[in-house]
Amino acid sequence: MPPETTDKRRLRGARTRGMVLRQAVDLASLDSLEGLSFGRLASDTGLSKAGIQTLFGTKEALQLATIDRAREMFTGAVVQPARQAPHGAARLRALTEHWIDYATAPLFAGGCFRVANLAEYDSRPGPIRDALVRDQDDWRNLLSRELRHAISAGEIVDQDAELAAFHLDAVLCAANTGLRLGDTGVVDKIRRTVEDVLAAPPG
Amino acid sequence: MPPETTDKRRLRGARTRGMVLRQAVDLASLDSLEGLSFGRLASDTGLSKAGIQTLFGTKEALQLATIDRAREMFTGAVVQPARQAPHGAARLRALTEHWIDYATAPLFAGGCFRVANLAEYDSRPGPIRDALVRDQDDWRNLLSRELRHAISAGEIVDQDAELAAFHLDAVLCAANTGLRLGDTGVVDKIRRTVEDVLAAPPG
Repeated sequence: MPPETTDKRRLRGARTRGMVLRQAVDLASLDSLEGLSFGRLASDTGLSKAGIQTLFGTKEALQLATIDRAREMFTGAVVQPARQAPHGAARLRALTEHWIDYATAPLFAGGCFRVANLAEYDSRPGPIRDALVRDQDDWRNLLSRELRHAISAGEIVDQDAELAAFHLDAVLCAANTGLRLGDTGVVDKIRRTVEDVLAAPPG
Repeated sequence: MPPETTDKRRLRGARTRGMVLRQAVDLASLDSLEGLSFGRLASDTGLSKAGIQTLFGTKEALQLATIDRAREMFTGAVVQPARQAPHGAARLRALTEHWIDYATAPLFAGGCFRVANLAEYDSRPGPIRDALVRDQDDWRNLLSRELRHAISAGEIVDQDAELAAFHLDAVLCAANTGLRLGDTGVVDKIRRTVEDVLAAPPG
């Protein structure tokens, strides 16, 4: 087989995969990963069910690929752009503002991908729950690292960084639900929470 | 028809209804209200599908009755026992401790009923979402009323009671997910959050 044909086929496969996964993250953010099926994705994208099945193999492989795609999109929308801000309080403010855009625009049709899915999978041990928990841990660890930066730089009041990261994340998750319900007042609640956590030490 | 027969029939209907709903709240806390079906409840309870369908009519009526039953059970396990404590900081501590029991024991097989379902219904307007939001509003309003009590009694630092109630509830919801994942360290995080919110004014 001439190399161009193989390359073209690979490119077409990657493009199809991308198209299916873009649809899958939206569906999973609205209805949860459990609702994903090759048939539903075929009818939503206009591709053949057999073709999609060949690309992913099993439903679980599709679900895990969807989680990875959502993670990449979240990182691209929230984590990477915040890297322009210096470590510590400035980075935390940037992360929060990009998170607010992520949840209000929203990047995924059903809002925060992790909130939509972890509530469904938290009682079901297995690779899907593990992948969602890995994303949650990475996000909270990122927040607590920046909090420790801010504390050791003397930018903010000394506090338990892990507990503060848990708080911040809890408020973001609750605000995500509020946004889905049309309560835009939660954006102000997020900003006030962040400013409480990032209060400068007295004197 | 003699009155005893009608009474007996009514009693049997109520008992069956109670049995079905007890199973339904567990299922809905694990898999969400969307996963409820007359067929599944029939096979789980050993009752006839037709009999259950006659009792509830439509799937939506069954879902709404399940929300009401979960609300009654939550009120009985968390809100009512806390009424023994005086209004304000003591009542808030009692509510928190009963909530911790509710989520750790747990009262429902899948943990907090609202967290399990609101994440699924937050993007779907309709009577089910409305009922879940009503429960969330009532719970947060209860917390903020007790916070205002504690503030006006001078028990705790003056603060925005509505924002503090949002925080407390956000931390409880995040802790519920942690508990489902086997992270018992979240109980300590709840207690420390509550003590931060309930800190006495200086002097």
